[in-house]
Amino acid sequence: MIYLDNSATTKQYDEVIDLMVGCMKENFGNPSSLYGIGLDAEKLIKKARRQVEYAIDAGEGRAVFTSGGTEADNMALFGSADSLRKRGNKIVTSAVEHPAVLECCSRLEERGFRVVRIPVDRNCNPSLDAVREAVDEDTILVSFMQVNNEVGTVMPIDEISDIIDENKSPGLLHTDAVQSFGKIRLPQCADLISVSGHKIHGPKGSGALWMRNVNRHGRKTSLPSYIVGGGQESGLRSGTENVPAIAGLGLAAEMSSRNLRKEAERLAGMREAIIEELEAGLPDVILNSPRISGEEPGMCCPTVISMTFMGTRGEVLLHDLERDGIYLSTGSACSSNKKGQSHVLKAMGLKDKEIEGTLRISLGRFNTMDEVEFLTDRIKTAVRRFRKLGSFR
Amino acid sequence: MIYLDNSATTKQYDEVIDLMVGCMKENFGNPSSLYGIGLDAEKLIKKARRQVEYAIDAGEGRAVFTSGGTEADNMALFGSADSLRKRGNKIVTSAVEHPAVLECCSRLEERGFRVVRIPVDRNCNPSLDAVREAVDEDTILVSFMQVNNEVGTVMPIDEISDIIDENKSPGLLHTDAVQSFGKIRLPQCADLISVSGHKIHGPKGSGALWMRNVNRHGRKTSLPSYIVGGGQESGLRSGTENVPAIAGLGLAAEMSSRNLRKEAERLAGMREAIIEELEAGLPDVILNSPRISGEEPGMCCPTVISMTFMGTRGEVLLHDLERDGIYLSTGSACSSNKKGQSHVLKAMGLKDKEIEGTLRISLGRFNTMDEVEFLTDRIKTAVRRFRKLGSFR
Repeated sequence: MIYLDNSATTKQYDEVIDLMVGCMKENFGNPSSLYGIGLDAEKLIKKARRQVEYAIDAGEGRAVFTSGGTEADNMALFGSADSLRKRGNKIVTSAVEHPAVLECCSRLEERGFRVVRIPVDRNCNPSLDAVREAVDEDTILVSFMQVNNEVGTVMPIDEISDIIDENKSPGLLHTDAVQSFGKIRLPQCADLISVSGHKIHGPKGSGALWMRNVNRHGRKTSLPSYIVGGGQESGLRSGTENVPAIAGLGLAAEMSSRNLRKEAERLAGMREAIIEELEAGLPDVILNSPRISGEEPGMCCPTVISMTFMGTRGEVLLHDLERDGIYLSTGSACSSNKKGQSHVLKAMGLKDKEIEGTLRISLGRFNTMDEVEFLTDRIKTAVRRFRKLGSFR
Repeated sequence: MIYLDNSATTKQYDEVIDLMVGCMKENFGNPSSLYGIGLDAEKLIKKARRQVEYAIDAGEGRAVFTSGGTEADNMALFGSADSLRKRGNKIVTSAVEHPAVLECCSRLEERGFRVVRIPVDRNCNPSLDAVREAVDEDTILVSFMQVNNEVGTVMPIDEISDIIDENKSPGLLHTDAVQSFGKIRLPQCADLISVSGHKIHGPKGSGALWMRNVNRHGRKTSLPSYIVGGGQESGLRSGTENVPAIAGLGLAAEMSSRNLRKEAERLAGMREAIIEELEAGLPDVILNSPRISGEEPGMCCPTVISMTFMGTRGEVLLHDLERDGIYLSTGSACSSNKKGQSHVLKAMGLKDKEIEGTLRISLGRFNTMDEVEFLTDRIKTAVRRFRKLGSFR
């Protein structure tokens, strides 16, 4: 099996599975309990929090464990809106955010907030002029993902942060780092950062919202809890802690942040080899992701390739490749089950026919250079076959 | 180890752990993905949903998977309030609900809803007269737990349901069945039911909100999603599905609903033996739970014993017993880490000194009659020692 849909979800590290099984069998106590096995569970959570905060490495802040990236985004968006609504009424985000952010924005719009969705160019880069125009003294939240999940573009988070300061906005800066965590350095300027476990070979059902201790306005970042009840996570996230998943997230964060730069270089090499091979071997191929892999704004996260094969249908190619044991996607998993087209590719200006012929290849820690030849060979064959049947050219 | 804090959390069934490991290793695909391993994951979720719905066994309804009982309660409370606010403004609940319900009520109060908290008697039974007086044409939600987590009292859910109908209230009936699921039959009259995995030897981080297809008012029960994003769970709960936990919840639900009645009888016998032994062996002991175990209103769920040992401090007894490898609690895990006293015991009219000397013993599937003698012997010794040191009597 060649699994190349790591932006959708990943296979867990064996070490993470082993740790979780240990928690389930030995450390099953409720961390709120007063006796030893409760305290042991509490210690596992403390360790995981240190690991996650260390891996996020964005300054002094606190990670609050959630059930995943989506909940972290909900907590960031709804929490900021609720706690800052006295200071302003506007939210600025991009047109290509994950639905976990965009759907919160739509809900907040229904509740009377004004939401500005910044457009992007053909490389999925947001217009900084539009950001400069939108962010103002009424803006309470600016939310931009660090890496787009469908094409991998690295967003200019630092520049957006500067604009918030320059424009004297009372807003907080949130970044959905679900696709960048464990892959590139996270922004040092965000007040709120969402991360997820299952995108970094960690457990499903795990994630965190990181909150900078002292935010850009010199105040304590204090969001209300989104899920209320027993007051776990220092009152910020209620519900009995999912100890195995939290411990697993901690270990996955540690393992994925080890050799981050070296691993990014390795994957960037693999990514470039795939792109080169496909561009050399097939006519009418469009790379939708930025060409160069790296950490700078406008570059691509080394794990993502979005490519359009004109005259084909991505969904058919996907099933064709599946017969060869190759697993990849047409875009994000969330949207793949729905009939609608990718809002990201649409915002980037792709035409319907281009969106239709698009595949996303997303790499993870378990992929190796050995897979490139077979993968690109199979893609070329599948594309040629489709084009022949469809009388393309 | 004799673990007797099963109302706080439970040790997972080995079969559940094995199933989860299999999911993590083999079925790690994103259920929204179009290829085979995505579809396999989707099938696991479908199977788990059938298992959970079958175990809930409350009529035609749909289980929406959540990250646990607390999230299910949040979804039920906030969702009902949001979707029914045009029909009325009042919520009726009990004074002894779990914080996952009470905290939602406090938030809703801040948002302008009127909340009535029905008082309970010394057995933790709510006053039906007070319910009758409170539930009216302005009431949009009535939320009563089926079994109280601190003392085990079975609430008169059917009677409360009748009152909603008699009083022509437009309200829905929600029951937090976290403590009753897998232990006694769930009410057949509730429109919304919350359940949790980790209280029935299933995974932490798993739970469900069950919604009756056609509610008491002849309408489709349709709550808005609480966590929004990619539209998973038919748009009702976003976020990549936690497949291992969902599959584990399904199996735990099936295993816990097998031989439900026989198991309840077995635990009721064990419960009675513990109570008898302690009452016979120690003076000045108060049973806070209803005496008789069973499914009828006012009876006690066969898994819970709350007892006050006058002249002692529960917390000290707990640590004393821990040295003998016995794990139990002073009350709920949620409140045990906080300084405040149990709101449940307080609502039941216990005096401060009585609350202070209270222990909760909660049984699970792995407890056996063999443990009774050692347990009761150790408790008696611990109580006598404490009383001697404290010069009680």
